[in-house]
Amino acid sequence: MADPSTEELQIFAEQLAGLSGEVARRYFRTPVDVDQKPDASPVTVADREIESILRERIEAAFPAHGILGEEFGTVRGEARYVWVLDPIDGTKAFITGKPLFGTLIGLLEEQKPLLGLIDQPILNERWVGIRGRKTYFNGRPVKTRACPDIGLAAMYSTAPGMFEGKDAETYARLKQRVRYPMFGTDCYGYGLLALGFADLVVEAQLKTHDFFPIVPIVEGAGGRMTDWQGKPLGPNSDGHVLAAGDPALHAAALAILNGHT
Amino acid sequence: MADPSTEELQIFAEQLAGLSGEVARRYFRTPVDVDQKPDASPVTVADREIESILRERIEAAFPAHGILGEEFGTVRGEARYVWVLDPIDGTKAFITGKPLFGTLIGLLEEQKPLLGLIDQPILNERWVGIRGRKTYFNGRPVKTRACPDIGLAAMYSTAPGMFEGKDAETYARLKQRVRYPMFGTDCYGYGLLALGFADLVVEAQLKTHDFFPIVPIVEGAGGRMTDWQGKPLGPNSDGHVLAAGDPALHAAALAILNGHT
Repeated sequence: MADPSTEELQIFAEQLAGLSGEVARRYFRTPVDVDQKPDASPVTVADREIESILRERIEAAFPAHGILGEEFGTVRGEARYVWVLDPIDGTKAFITGKPLFGTLIGLLEEQKPLLGLIDQPILNERWVGIRGRKTYFNGRPVKTRACPDIGLAAMYSTAPGMFEGKDAETYARLKQRVRYPMFGTDCYGYGLLALGFADLVVEAQLKTHDFFPIVPIVEGAGGRMTDWQGKPLGPNSDGHVLAAGDPALHAAALAILNGHT
Repeated sequence: MADPSTEELQIFAEQLAGLSGEVARRYFRTPVDVDQKPDASPVTVADREIESILRERIEAAFPAHGILGEEFGTVRGEARYVWVLDPIDGTKAFITGKPLFGTLIGLLEEQKPLLGLIDQPILNERWVGIRGRKTYFNGRPVKTRACPDIGLAAMYSTAPGMFEGKDAETYARLKQRVRYPMFGTDCYGYGLLALGFADLVVEAQLKTHDFFPIVPIVEGAGGRMTDWQGKPLGPNSDGHVLAAGDPALHAAALAILNGHT
């Protein structure tokens, strides 16, 4: 079977996002039961139902493709194409009625991000990134903004609690240098960066499903997104993520994270 | 002149929110200039334009009423009725394109909150509270949820940086006890609490324009909102705020803040 075209894959990913959005809207701001996962993070029927539906559709359309999902694990992880699913990134936001969670749908080709999508189904906002192409937000191309001076940067992270032990000191060095350190965004912070309204997103303790779908979005908008050493994010990354809208700012932030300035 | 009826005042406050929303939508996600105030907090043309328009309307409709606004200070602060205006609560959210900022419009009668409104003009969400009445969200009555067990509570604060010195230790005691400590909400956290999707909002360094408009919203939904000693919020409050959806949870959180448990 011939490889699907990138256009075909994008259309399919957007169809998946349409399906996930229907489920998310049905459960949003309703009293859903919340289970605690072993790491104490919450999961709901909405997370599970979305991932089940997306997996079924992928199995039907592309049975040879792999799937790596937050809730139900990995199948065919060594396939040429692997779909990466985070049904609700920001489950704490979701269960508290805050419409900044997102469904993340990514596609790896040979273990590298080819396509990524963030869908916010309450605000009807969708970012789509494809390697080597411009990032689109609700159908129009977007780009990051210039911000070479770290002293002017607006920086988002999901929560201060994600920086533990040595990470807390490392993060504190960066926080001291930016103008506005802010919190509470999950995937939405990367979306704001791609739109050119935030300059940095710094995070720790992320899993592959949290970052793979976002890489093509940030890079296609003109930004850079790596680990805290500046290495490309991959299946063996350690969960530290640094995204910058301005590549010069990425270099400056890396130097600060690594104590070189 | 006879005092205006509460209905008349509510209608007027909602008209003001309609005007502020037009301005906020016009500037949202556009590259507005950002000035730094002496306390290093940002202010934009949108903050100033909204407050100017609201003040003009109040002066025209109720020339004897006082006005206390974030950007342009206080006139007739000792009047029987005083309008309290925060044109954009969450200016950092606003300038980074995050649609969780809000316009706060409150009315004090004899220095006590009579009416309060939170308007989120991008999401078209509006909370209205009136002393002694049910709180409304987009035209329907809402109420807080029961959560007597602090170990199950979802708690919002705008930023960890608002807790400095001794406040940081005090806040940390509470944070350890709740299930989900979260950040990044400005006024929107109180709105989620009034809707019954969050249980606690704890903050420090707030000004009167930040909290007066919110008190009738939280209390009309069944919650409690005081300072960290449990005292009613007033013109001489010290900027510490504790809001709880469940009055029993408010008592438990107060005891923890004050080291009694």
